[in-house]
Amino acid sequence: MLRIAVLGAGRIGKIHAANVAASPGATLVAVADPFGSAAEDLAGALSAEAARDPKATIERADVDAVVIGTPTDTHVDLILHAVRHGKAVLCEKPIDLDIARADVALKDIEAGNGRVMLAFNRRFDPSADALKRAILAGDVGEVRQVVITSRDPGLAPEGYLATSGGIFRDMTIHDFDMARFFLGEEVTEVMAIGSRLVDAAMMERVNDFDTVMVQMRTASGKQCHINCCREAVYGYDQRFEIYGSTGMVLNENIRPSTVRRWARDFTDSGEPLLNFFLERYADAYRLELAAFIEAVASSAPMPVTARDGRQALRLADCALESALTGRAVTV
Amino acid sequence: MLRIAVLGAGRIGKIHAANVAASPGATLVAVADPFGSAAEDLAGALSAEAARDPKATIERADVDAVVIGTPTDTHVDLILHAVRHGKAVLCEKPIDLDIARADVALKDIEAGNGRVMLAFNRRFDPSADALKRAILAGDVGEVRQVVITSRDPGLAPEGYLATSGGIFRDMTIHDFDMARFFLGEEVTEVMAIGSRLVDAAMMERVNDFDTVMVQMRTASGKQCHINCCREAVYGYDQRFEIYGSTGMVLNENIRPSTVRRWARDFTDSGEPLLNFFLERYADAYRLELAAFIEAVASSAPMPVTARDGRQALRLADCALESALTGRAVTV
Amino acid sequence: MLRIAVLGAGRIGKIHAANVAASPGATLVAVADPFGSAAEDLAGALSAEAARDPKATIERADVDAVVIGTPTDTHVDLILHAVRHGKAVLCEKPIDLDIARADVALKDIEAGNGRVMLAFNRRFDPSADALKRAILAGDVGEVRQVVITSRDPGLAPEGYLATSGGIFRDMTIHDFDMARFFLGEEVTEVMAIGSRLVDAAMMERVNDFDTVMVQMRTASGKQCHINCCREAVYGYDQRFEIYGSTGMVLNENIRPSTVRRWARDFTDSGEPLLNFFLERYADAYRLELAAFIEAVASSAPMPVTARDGRQALRLADCALESALTGRAVTV
Amino acid sequence: MLRIAVLGAGRIGKIHAANVAASPGATLVAVADPFGSAAEDLAGALSAEAARDPKATIERADVDAVVIGTPTDTHVDLILHAVRHGKAVLCEKPIDLDIARADVALKDIEAGNGRVMLAFNRRFDPSADALKRAILAGDVGEVRQVVITSRDPGLAPEGYLATSGGIFRDMTIHDFDMARFFLGEEVTEVMAIGSRLVDAAMMERVNDFDTVMVQMRTASGKQCHINCCREAVYGYDQRFEIYGSTGMVLNENIRPSTVRRWARDFTDSGEPLLNFFLERYADAYRLELAAFIEAVASSAPMPVTARDGRQALRLADCALESALTGRAVTV
Repeated sequence: MLRIAVLGAGRIGKIHAANVAASPGATLVAVADPFGSAAEDLAGALSAEAARDPKATIERADVDAVVIGTPTDTHVDLILHAVRHGKAVLCEKPIDLDIARADVALKDIEAGNGRVMLAFNRRFDPSADALKRAILAGDVGEVRQVVITSRDPGLAPEGYLATSGGIFRDMTIHDFDMARFFLGEEVTEVMAIGSRLVDAAMMERVNDFDTVMVQMRTASGKQCHINCCREAVYGYDQRFEIYGSTGMVLNENIRPSTVRRWARDFTDSGEPLLNFFLERYADAYRLELAAFIEAVASSAPMPVTARDGRQALRLADCALESALTGRAVTV
Repeated sequence: MLRIAVLGAGRIGKIHAANVAASPGATLVAVADPFGSAAEDLAGALSAEAARDPKATIERADVDAVVIGTPTDTHVDLILHAVRHGKAVLCEKPIDLDIARADVALKDIEAGNGRVMLAFNRRFDPSADALKRAILAGDVGEVRQVVITSRDPGLAPEGYLATSGGIFRDMTIHDFDMARFFLGEEVTEVMAIGSRLVDAAMMERVNDFDTVMVQMRTASGKQCHINCCREAVYGYDQRFEIYGSTGMVLNENIRPSTVRRWARDFTDSGEPLLNFFLERYADAYRLELAAFIEAVASSAPMPVTARDGRQALRLADCALESALTGRAVTV
Repeated sequence: MLRIAVLGAGRIGKIHAANVAASPGATLVAVADPFGSAAEDLAGALSAEAARDPKATIERADVDAVVIGTPTDTHVDLILHAVRHGKAVLCEKPIDLDIARADVALKDIEAGNGRVMLAFNRRFDPSADALKRAILAGDVGEVRQVVITSRDPGLAPEGYLATSGGIFRDMTIHDFDMARFFLGEEVTEVMAIGSRLVDAAMMERVNDFDTVMVQMRTASGKQCHINCCREAVYGYDQRFEIYGSTGMVLNENIRPSTVRRWARDFTDSGEPLLNFFLERYADAYRLELAAFIEAVASSAPMPVTARDGRQALRLADCALESALTGRAVTV
Repeated sequence: MLRIAVLGAGRIGKIHAANVAASPGATLVAVADPFGSAAEDLAGALSAEAARDPKATIERADVDAVVIGTPTDTHVDLILHAVRHGKAVLCEKPIDLDIARADVALKDIEAGNGRVMLAFNRRFDPSADALKRAILAGDVGEVRQVVITSRDPGLAPEGYLATSGGIFRDMTIHDFDMARFFLGEEVTEVMAIGSRLVDAAMMERVNDFDTVMVQMRTASGKQCHINCCREAVYGYDQRFEIYGSTGMVLNENIRPSTVRRWARDFTDSGEPLLNFFLERYADAYRLELAAFIEAVASSAPMPVTARDGRQALRLADCALESALTGRAVTV
C-alpha cells in the first residue's frame, strides 16, 4: 500500500486526492496547502491529515510518494526536495516555465536517481491509449502525419493567463507531449503562427496569443500539425488523428450521453461536448495515478518522465520563437 | 437498342421517361397519356412522340417494351395487353389493389410467358443492393432479424389517400417486398397494428391508418419488423437493418450534403434528409431501368417479377386483416 | 447517512455493495449471503460486516434499508419481511416469475405502505435518462413509435436459462419496462413471435425461445416494437428510438473508447461494444442507487415501484401467451 | 443555347464533354484533340464533331465558348487565343506552372476583358458549397481556423509526376484555392514542410515531395492548415473544417453506399471512400459547368477567375520556397 501525500489543494489537487483515496493500492496520508482552509477542507472530506507545509509533508516518514499540484513556480523546488528525501513524485505539468531551470532540475533529478513522473494526463485517456496501442501494433504502418485539435471551451480569466507562461507553454504543451507520444520520434523543426482572435485587447495586455497553429517535423520527415484555440463555443475539442502508410486511426470527442436528435431542421444532432478537462479526462486522471502507483510499486520506469516534461517545454519555446520571428526553429 | 414507350406522364412517368432517354441501351420512342397535355409536354422535352392511347402505343411495331406508370387500376389491363403483343413490361407497383385480380393476371402472364418486371425500385438502391450482396456473401451468417423503418416526410392529400388502397397496400407494400428481398424466404405469418396518430379525423374519413407496425416470421423462424408512418418531420426515413448469426449490416439515411454543424447547443448536426422518393431513390430508378433493359436484352429472368408483386400484395392484405382482427394471419 | 445492508453477494450484489460503499449518503453496514464465503469475501473487501441470514440482517436495528440481490424465488419473501420491519427496499428484477405471487406481494406491500423500489437499472442510464427528459420536454411532440433493440452478447449457460423463467420474463422484461417508461401510457395489447435461431437444441431442452419480436399498443394507439436475441457477436446491443410528431431521439451504443480505424478495406470502423450489462450499465447502477438513497432520505415516492415490476411481468406473460398462441393478447 | 467546344479529349476532357452534352443550356459542337483518335472517339460517342486543331476550333463561328482540358503548358496560349476571338473560356487548373507567364497572361486577359473561368471544381461540390453558404450566413461567426485534409488514393505514375510542377503546384493548388474560398481573405504568410515518405527514391528522382503540411495566415490573423499526401490506402480523403467564433462546420467523406457493418471484431464500419476525383467530384464537375454556362448566358462575373488561378499558384510557389528554405514566406 503506497502512502501518498497530495501537495496543493486546488482544482487539480482535489482530483488527485480523490483518486488516491479511491485507489486500492494507495492510501491518502495527507493534503498540504499553505493557503486558507483548502487543505483542511479537502483532507477532511477524504479522512486524511491536513498540513500547511509541503516540504515538511514530503519529509514525513509515513509518506512514500507525493503528488504535486501546487503553482508552477514551486514545482522544481518541491520535486528536488522529494528526490533528496527519496520520495517518488507525480508532478503536474509544466515542470517549469523556464527551460534553463527545467534543465538544471532535470540534471539534479537524474543525478539523484529521482523517481519523478510528469502528469501528462492525456496519454492515459482510454482513446489516446487505444490510438497508441494501434500504432505500436502496426495498424497504421509507418506514421506519416499526426493532426491534433485542441480547443478549450472558454477563455480563462485574465489573471490566470497573465502568469500562465503563454499559450504554448500553458495549453499547447499538452499537445506537444501528445505529438511526441504519437510520432515516436523527436521533433527536429517547429513552425508556428500566433493570432489574437478571441479577445485581442486582453491578449495584448497579457502579451499572448489565443489562437495558434503549429507544424513540426522529425528527422525522418514525419509531420505533425497542432491547432489550438482558447475558446470553442461547442465545448472542449480534443481530437487526435494518426495517418500512416497502411491506415489511419483517430478518436472522436465525448459527450455526456450518446443521445442524438432529429427534427424539422436538423438530423442526428449530438449533445455539446463534455465541457472541460476535469470531466473529459476524469478517466485519464484516474488511470494516470494507477500507472504512477504501479510504477512505484514495481520499481518500473516511470511511464512519463521529467525529461518528457522538459522536451514538451522545449517545443513550446521553439513554437513561441517561431511565432514571433516567422522562421522555422530547429529544436 | 431497346425501343421503349412510357405509359403515363405523371410524376413517376417523368422519372422513367427521362431515364429511358438518358440510357445508352434504349431509345424513348413515345410517351402516352390520355389526360391534358401531359404526354405532349413530356415527350416534347425528351424528343419523343406523344400519344393519347396507351394500348395503341403498346401495339406499335417500333415499340419493344413499355414502362407502365399509369393509375393502379389500369395496370393489369395494360400488362396483359403488352404480354399478348409480346412486349416486355416494367410496371409500377402495385400490380393491383385486389389480390384476386392480381392472381388472375399472374396466371395469364405466366401462361403467356410474359416478360414482366415489377418496379420495386428500392431493391436497386445502391445501399439496399450492397446490403443484399453482403447477405449473399455470408457477411452476416444466417439472417435472424430484419428491421425496416419506412416513414414518409408528410401526409399525402386526402384525395390520394382515399383511393390508395390503404397504407399497407400503398406504402408498406415496398417494405413487404424488401422484407422478402432480405429474408430470402417466404413469410408465413403476419401480425400488424394500425393507429391514427397523424390525422385521426382524415384517417377516419378515408378508413385507413397512418401509423403501423408489422412483425412477420418465415417457416424457419426468421423474423422481420416493419414500422411505417405517413409523416416524419425530419424527412424521408428509409432504413434497413439485417442482423444475423455472425454480424449485422445496415444502411444510413442520405442527406443533400455531408456537412455537419457544431455550435453552442449542439454538435455534429446533419442536414435534414433528402425529402422524398424521387430524390432519395433517383439512383434506384435509374439502376432499376438499367436492370430491366439488360434483362430484356439478354433474355435473362426478370430481376423482380409479377409474382413478387403479388406476394407483397398478399402480405399487405394479411397485415390489414391482422390489424383489423388482432390476430396473427397465416399467409 | 442511510445505513444499508446488501442481501446476496453474487454478481449483482457485488455491484450494489461497491456502490453503497462509495456513496457519500450511505454506509454499507452488512452483506448477507448464506452460501460459502461470498458474504465474508465481499464484506471484507468493503469494510462491512458479513452475515449468513438475510432476514436477521433485515431486522438489525442499525439497518435502515436493504438491497436485495438474492435468487428470484426469494424476492417476495424478503421484500415483505423488510416491509413488515419498516425497512426500505431496493429489489432486483423481477419481483417474481409468477404473476399471482407478484400480485399478492404487491397488495401486501401497498397495504403496509412499504417503501420498495424495483431495480430497473436501465431507466438510470444517462442516455436513457436524457431520452426521457427529451420526451418530457416535448422535444419529440407526441410519441408515436418506440423501437427497442436489446441483444445480449452471448447465450447464457443452459443451467441459468433452465430456471430463468424464459426469455420474456428474464431478458425482455427490461425492455417491457423501458417501453412503459418511454410510452408514458399503459400497454393494452401485445403481439409476440418467438424463434429458436441461436441454439435450437438447447432451446428445446429448456422450452424457451432465443430470438423474439414483440409489438404493442396503448389505448391511444402509440406503438412499440422490441427485438431481442440472446446472442449478438458484435456485443451488447442496447438501442432506444423514440419517434414522435415533431422529432425523434435515439441513443447510440457505447464502446470502450471512441477510436475509429481506416484501412484499405474499411473506413470509420469502431471498436466492438462494451460487452455486457455490468460494464454497459455501470453508471446506471450507480445512479439507480443514488436515486434510491435520495428517495428514502427525502421520503419522496420511489422512482420505480413494485407495481412497475408487476406491470413488466404482466407484459412478459402476455408476450409469452401471444408467441405460443399466435394471437394478440389484451393486457 | 450556348455552343461549346471541348479542347482536349483526355480524362478530364471526357468529363467536361459528357457534361456539356447533357446540359439543357448548352450544345457540344466539337471536341478537338491532336493526338490519335481521342477526338473522334469522344465526339462520336456524344454526337459532336471531331477536330484536330484546338485553335481552329476556337475560331469556329458556331462556337461561343471553349472548355480547355489540354496539357498545362498549352493553357495560356489557348486562353489568350480564345480571349482574342471573344470566346468564353472554362480552363482546367493550373493556369500555368510558371507564375511569370501566368501574370503576363492575366494582364492580357484583363486588358482584353476576357471571359475566363478557372476550373477549381471543388468549390462546386455540394458539401463545399454548403460550407461556404454556412460561412456567408454567419453560422460560424468570424472564421478563425480552416483545416484542409487532402490525400490522394495512390501515387501517380513517375512520368506524370516528373512534369507535374511538383506537389504544391499540381495537387495542393486545389487546397490553396479552397483555403482562399473559405478564409474570405488573402493569405499573407505561408509556411510549409515537405517530406518523402511514400516513395523516397522516386521523389528524389522527380525532385519532389509526396507528403506536405502547410500553414498560412491572413492579415487579420485567420489561420489555415493543409495536409496533403500522394497516397492514402483508405481512399481519396477530402475534408474541410471551418472553425469560427460561434460554431464549426465540416464535411464528411463520401462512400459508394451508406452501408455499415458490424461483426465480432468491429462495429459501424463503413465502406472505403469513393476512390478518386472523377467519382468523388462528379457532381462538382457538373455544377461547375452549369455555373460557367449561367455566367456566360447572364454576362455575370465568372464565379472563379483567372486571377483566382494566379493567386493559388502564387501560394503554391510560396509553399515550395518555404519547404526548401525553412522560412515563412510573405506572399
